[in-house]
Amino acid sequence: MHPTKENFSTILLFLVLLIFSFAPIHGFHPLDPLTPFELNQVQTLVKKSHQNVTFHYVGLDEPDKPKILSWISQNQPKNLLKHRQAFVMARVDSKSHEIMIDLSNNKILSDKIYDGNGYPMLTNEEQATASELPHKYGPFITSIKKRNLNLSEVLCEGFTIGWYGEENTKRVITVMCYYVDGTINFYMRPIEGIMATVDLDQMKIVQYRDRLMVPVPKADGTDYRESKQYPPFDTRIKGMTILQPDGPSFIIDGHNVRWANWEFHLAFDMRVGPIISLASIYDHDMNKYRSVMYRGYVSELFVPYQDLSEEWYYRTFLDAGEFGFGLCAMPLQPSTDCPPNAVFLDGFYTTQDGTPTKKSNVFCVFERYAGDIMWRHSEAALPGDTVEVRSDVTLVVRMVSTVANYDYIIDWEFKQSGSIKVTTSLSGMLAAKGSTYTHKDQIQEEVYGTLVAENVIGARHDHFLSFHLDLDIDGVTNSMMKSHLQTTRAIDPNSPRKSYWKVVDEVAKTESEAKIKLGSSAIDIKVVNLNKKTKVGNHIGYTLMPGSVAGSLLWKDDHEQIRGGFSNYNVWVTPYNKSEKWAGGLYVDQAHGEDNLAQWTLRNREIENKDIVLWYTLGFHHVPLQEDYPIMPTLSNGFELRPANFFEHNPVLKVKSPKLVKWLNCSA
Amino acid sequence: MHPTKENFSTILLFLVLLIFSFAPIHGFHPLDPLTPFELNQVQTLVKKSHQNVTFHYVGLDEPDKPKILSWISQNQPKNLLKHRQAFVMARVDSKSHEIMIDLSNNKILSDKIYDGNGYPMLTNEEQATASELPHKYGPFITSIKKRNLNLSEVLCEGFTIGWYGEENTKRVITVMCYYVDGTINFYMRPIEGIMATVDLDQMKIVQYRDRLMVPVPKADGTDYRESKQYPPFDTRIKGMTILQPDGPSFIIDGHNVRWANWEFHLAFDMRVGPIISLASIYDHDMNKYRSVMYRGYVSELFVPYQDLSEEWYYRTFLDAGEFGFGLCAMPLQPSTDCPPNAVFLDGFYTTQDGTPTKKSNVFCVFERYAGDIMWRHSEAALPGDTVEVRSDVTLVVRMVSTVANYDYIIDWEFKQSGSIKVTTSLSGMLAAKGSTYTHKDQIQEEVYGTLVAENVIGARHDHFLSFHLDLDIDGVTNSMMKSHLQTTRAIDPNSPRKSYWKVVDEVAKTESEAKIKLGSSAIDIKVVNLNKKTKVGNHIGYTLMPGSVAGSLLWKDDHEQIRGGFSNYNVWVTPYNKSEKWAGGLYVDQAHGEDNLAQWTLRNREIENKDIVLWYTLGFHHVPLQEDYPIMPTLSNGFELRPANFFEHNPVLKVKSPKLVKWLNCSA
Repeated sequence: MHPTKENFSTILLFLVLLIFSFAPIHGFHPLDPLTPFELNQVQTLVKKSHQNVTFHYVGLDEPDKPKILSWISQNQPKNLLKHRQAFVMARVDSKSHEIMIDLSNNKILSDKIYDGNGYPMLTNEEQATASELPHKYGPFITSIKKRNLNLSEVLCEGFTIGWYGEENTKRVITVMCYYVDGTINFYMRPIEGIMATVDLDQMKIVQYRDRLMVPVPKADGTDYRESKQYPPFDTRIKGMTILQPDGPSFIIDGHNVRWANWEFHLAFDMRVGPIISLASIYDHDMNKYRSVMYRGYVSELFVPYQDLSEEWYYRTFLDAGEFGFGLCAMPLQPSTDCPPNAVFLDGFYTTQDGTPTKKSNVFCVFERYAGDIMWRHSEAALPGDTVEVRSDVTLVVRMVSTVANYDYIIDWEFKQSGSIKVTTSLSGMLAAKGSTYTHKDQIQEEVYGTLVAENVIGARHDHFLSFHLDLDIDGVTNSMMKSHLQTTRAIDPNSPRKSYWKVVDEVAKTESEAKIKLGSSAIDIKVVNLNKKTKVGNHIGYTLMPGSVAGSLLWKDDHEQIRGGFSNYNVWVTPYNKSEKWAGGLYVDQAHGEDNLAQWTLRNREIENKDIVLWYTLGFHHVPLQEDYPIMPTLSNGFELRPANFFEHNPVLKVKSPKLVKWLNCSA
Repeated sequence: MHPTKENFSTILLFLVLLIFSFAPIHGFHPLDPLTPFELNQVQTLVKKSHQNVTFHYVGLDEPDKPKILSWISQNQPKNLLKHRQAFVMARVDSKSHEIMIDLSNNKILSDKIYDGNGYPMLTNEEQATASELPHKYGPFITSIKKRNLNLSEVLCEGFTIGWYGEENTKRVITVMCYYVDGTINFYMRPIEGIMATVDLDQMKIVQYRDRLMVPVPKADGTDYRESKQYPPFDTRIKGMTILQPDGPSFIIDGHNVRWANWEFHLAFDMRVGPIISLASIYDHDMNKYRSVMYRGYVSELFVPYQDLSEEWYYRTFLDAGEFGFGLCAMPLQPSTDCPPNAVFLDGFYTTQDGTPTKKSNVFCVFERYAGDIMWRHSEAALPGDTVEVRSDVTLVVRMVSTVANYDYIIDWEFKQSGSIKVTTSLSGMLAAKGSTYTHKDQIQEEVYGTLVAENVIGARHDHFLSFHLDLDIDGVTNSMMKSHLQTTRAIDPNSPRKSYWKVVDEVAKTESEAKIKLGSSAIDIKVVNLNKKTKVGNHIGYTLMPGSVAGSLLWKDDHEQIRGGFSNYNVWVTPYNKSEKWAGGLYVDQAHGEDNLAQWTLRNREIENKDIVLWYTLGFHHVPLQEDYPIMPTLSNGFELRPANFFEHNPVLKVKSPKLVKWLNCSA
C-alpha cells in the first residue's frame, strides 16, 4: 500500500509526538488544552472516519480526577503524558456525534450518535453563512425595498430560538437584520418586524415573516469609534502608566501560573473560555501548597429577554452552550483591555472544518495595584505612633468574550490573603428594538423596555452566569456548611440585652438542602473540610462572599426557565461527577432542559463529606438606561471565595509591600 | 482699660481676618471647614465666656442650603464670605452646652444648655486620662498582682457604655485593660474580667469589678510589625509604581476639587470625617455642570457586639457620635495607604481645650487605574475587526479612621461615567475576648464568638454605616422612585412565554414608604427629578446600586437597636432638614434614641417632589475567622450611585483613554 497523503500526515504527527515525549517539555500538564498538533490529529482522524463532518466542539477530555490527583501527589511523573484524549461534538449528515479520541494512540475510542433533544454549539461559519441568506432571498429583498433601504447596507445575524414545547425540532435559527449605512453600530439600527428562519442543516430559509413596519432608528449618535467623534471632547486624563522595572512577579511555565503564594493551571476552552485548575496556596506554617480549587470556570450563561413579542420572545440565550463563550473570546488590546504591565496568552480552537486556529491574546495576566490596602493599623495608644500598612497587589487573569452585541469581561483575581475574587463586567451594546415611538409620553402599551433614543427600545433582560467551582478545600472530601446568623432571645431574664445573633451551623446533607436563594436571610455559605481542623479546632474552610445578588424572576415551569434552571437558585452543590460540567447541559441549543443542573440535582444525591462542586449563579437584572446608548458603560458584579479558618492566622502577616520604585531621569 | 493678653489676641485675629477679606483667597467657599484662625477665634470667645470648659465638637455651621444654592447660581459673589458660623458642643461644669458663634462678627450668637438625655462626643484627652486611672487605683493594682502581671505592662482603654433603660445616667465610661509585654498588639491580650467605671466629669473610678480570672492570651504571634517578623517571609512582589509624567489630572483649589467632568468640595469634619459637597458633573450636551449631590458623608456608625456577658453586653458603639469618626482619622502613609501618585490634604480639629490642631495627610486624592475597562466592544461582523476600548481611570478621595482597634478605610470614587462609588474597607484588630479555652472541643457554652487562637475569642459583631446622601439630581426638588421588577403572567394565552418581568414604578410619597429592607425582592431604588425629563421623556435620575446587603438582626425594641435604629432599614428618605445631620442624633453617648433617623421618620413627612435626603445603611456581619488574627485582612463593601437617564446618552462616548506613556532610559 502506498502511503496516502492522509497516512503520511498521521505518521508525521506520530513522529512529532514521539519527539515531544522525549524532549524536555516545560510545564506540560495533563490538563493542558489540546495543542495545534493534537487538534490537527483530531481533524485528521475524524475526517478519515466521516466524509461530511462539521466540528462544533473540540476539547480536552481530561484524565479522571483521581488520576490527576494521584499524579500530583506522586510529584507529576511523565507517564500521564500518555493519557491524552479529545472530546468532539460534530454533525455528520444532520446527526450529532460524540466522538472520543485517544490522542496518545491516535485512534477513535468511541463515536456515538446522539438522538436526544437539543443540538451542539453553533459554529461561527454556519452563523455567518446563514446570515447572508436573506440577501439572496426574494421576499426579503422585497421587504427591504418596501422600506426604502439599501440592501448593500443591510447586515444580518443569527439567533438561537430556544425551545417552547415543540415536540419535534429542526436545527434552525432565526435571522434578524440591521441597517449599517453610516455607522459601525448597526445594533442600534434594527430592521424590526422581519424574521427569517434558517435550517442550518439544509442551510436555507425555511420560514419568512414580514409582520410590521417600524422606522429604522437613525445612525446619528450611534457610532462609538474615536475616529467618528467630533469636538468638544472630554478633558483627557493625563498620561499614566504602571511600571515594573524588574518585570512581573509571576511566572508562566506552559499553562502553569505561579505568583506570590499561589499556583494554578490556566487553560482555554472554546466552550467556557478560561478554566482555572488546581489552584493551591502556599502555607508557610505547613511548608506546603494546600489545595483550594480543582477546577473553576463559567459553566453557562442564561440571558432571557423579557419581551414577549413575536420577534423577541424566544431570545432566552444560553451563551456558552449555544455560541461558545470561549469561541466568542476576542483578542485583548494591550494597554486598554489590560494594563501596560499585562502579559498575553494565546488559545486554540477549531473552525467548523476542524482546522486548529489561534486566538491571539485570548487571556491577559497582570498584577493589579489599584491603590488598595491589604491590611493596616495605626496604633496611637502606645508611644511611637506605629503605623503598619501593606498595600494590596493581586493577580488578575482576564478574558473578554463578545457574544454578538454584548461584551463580557471575566476576571479571576487571586489575592495573597487567600481570596479568589471573580468579577464579571458587562459592556458592548444593548439588544435594541426598533419602535415607532420617539417620546415616552406616546407609549400606552407594554414595550418591554426603555426608550433609550428616538425609535430605540432597550429591551429588559437578565444575565445569569453559572460558575462551576469544584473546590477542594485542603483535600477532596468537603461539605457545604450553612452558617445561619440567627436572632436569639437572651436567656438570662436580667440581661440588659434582650436579643443578639448567634451562628447556627448546618451541614447540607443532600443536594436539595444546598439549593439557596440568597438575600432574604443572613447566611454564610462555606465549603469546609470536616476531616481537618485548625489547631484550636475550627473546621478548615472557604466562605462564599456574594456581591449584589440576583436570581431569575421567571416562573420555574416556564420553558426558558427550565432550560436556564440553574438561575432558580444562587447556590447549588452537587457531588463531583466528571460528566456534569455544563450547568445548561451538554446539548443546549433547543434542548428541553432534561440534562442540566436543575435536573441533575433532582436525584437529591448525598453531598456530605464527599467530593463536591459548588455552583454559584451570578446575576444581573438589566433595565436599560439612556446612558447605555449607544454603548454601555461597564456594569460589574462578582463574588469572592475567602479563606475561613483555612489558615491558622492571617496568612499575609509576613507579606511586605512591594518595593517602592522611584524613577529618575525618564524620557517619555 | 489695658488690653489683656486675651483681648490682644482677639484684636490680632480681627486684623488677620481683615487682611483675609481683602486678599485674593483662592478657592474660598462658604462650606470650607473652619480654619485654624477661626478655630482660635472660637476658642478665645468660648473661653472668655466660660472658665471651665472642654470642647467636644467644633465645626462649621454652614449657611442655609438656599443661601448656598443662590450663591452658586449667582456665580459665587464674595458677600457670603461674611457668613461664617461655628457650632460648638462643649461641657461646662458638668453640663452640655450648644454654642453658636458668629465668626464674621466675632461674637457668640447663642449658648444653650442641653438638659436632655445623652452626652456629646468624648474627647481624646479625657479618654486618655480615664484610661490611666486604674494604674493608681488600689483594687486594680491588687487584681493585676493576683494575676501575676506586671502593672507597667498594662494598658487600658475607655469604652462607651450605651444605654440600657436607666432613668438617670452619669457621664461614665468603662475602662478595660490589656497586657502589652512584648507585643504592640495589646488588643489580642485582654485582661478579661476586670471592669472599671469612670465618671468623666469627676474623672474618677466610681465602680470597680473583678469578676473572673481568665488567662491572658500569649504575646507570641500577635505582633504585626514588619520589624518583628522572622523568616521565612513571603515572596515579595517586585517593585511597581504608577507614573504620571505630567502630574495628576485633577486640580485642588482650596477645598474645591476638579477632575475630568467632576467638581466637588471636600471638607474635613471632626465628627464625620470627609464631607463631599456640591458634587456636579459636566454635561457636554447642555454645556454646563449639573448637580448630583449637595452633601454626602458617613453620618454615623453602629457597631453592636453580640456578646451578652457582663463585661461585653454594652459594647454597641456609635463610633461617629461617641468617638468622632474624623477625630479618629489617622495620617495616611504615602505609597502604602495611598498609591505613589496620591496628593495629601490636611485637616484641622480642636483638642479638648479648644486648641486648633492639624491632622496631617488626613485625606488623599488620587487617580486610580486598576486595569479596568470603562466600555468596550469588538465588532467582528463588519470588515476591519474594529475594537474600541476605553480604560477606566477614576478619582478617589480616601480617609482612614482608626477607632481604637478598628481601621475604617473610606473611599469616595468618582467615575467619568457619572457614578459615585463608595467603598468601606475594614482592617485593624478584632475585639478579642480572653478565654480559658484553648480548643473548640472544650467549649460547651455560648461564647459569642470564634476561638481564633488559644485563649482568644473573636467576638461576633456588625458594622453599620449610615451614609447621608443629600442628592440633588439636576436640581433640588427630587423624589424617590421604587422600581419593582415584577414577575407577570403573559397576557396572550397563545404566548410561548408564560411569564416575564416588567417594571412597576412607584414614587414614595412619605417617609414610611421609603423605608426599605433590601434583599428579598428585586427593586431598583432611584432618586429622580420628576420635573425634568430627557428628550425622549424619561425621568432624570440616579440609581442606588447596593453591594452586599446587610441590616441589623436585633429586635427593633431592644435598647441598643433603638439607639442604632438607622440599621433597621437599608434605605431611608427624609425631607431635607438642616438639623438632621447625624443618623444617630446630635447627642449619642448614652442617648435614649429619642433624636435619630428612626425617630425623625416617625413623623412620616411628605417626601414627594421635595428636597430630599437619601440615607443608605451599609452593613457588615462579622463572624471572626482565624485569618483575622492577629490583624484583619481588609474586608470591603460599598454601593454606587449611577446615573439613570440623567444623561441623554452614554456620557463617556467622547472620553479618550489616557495617553499611553512609554518610559525610556529610567534609572530606579
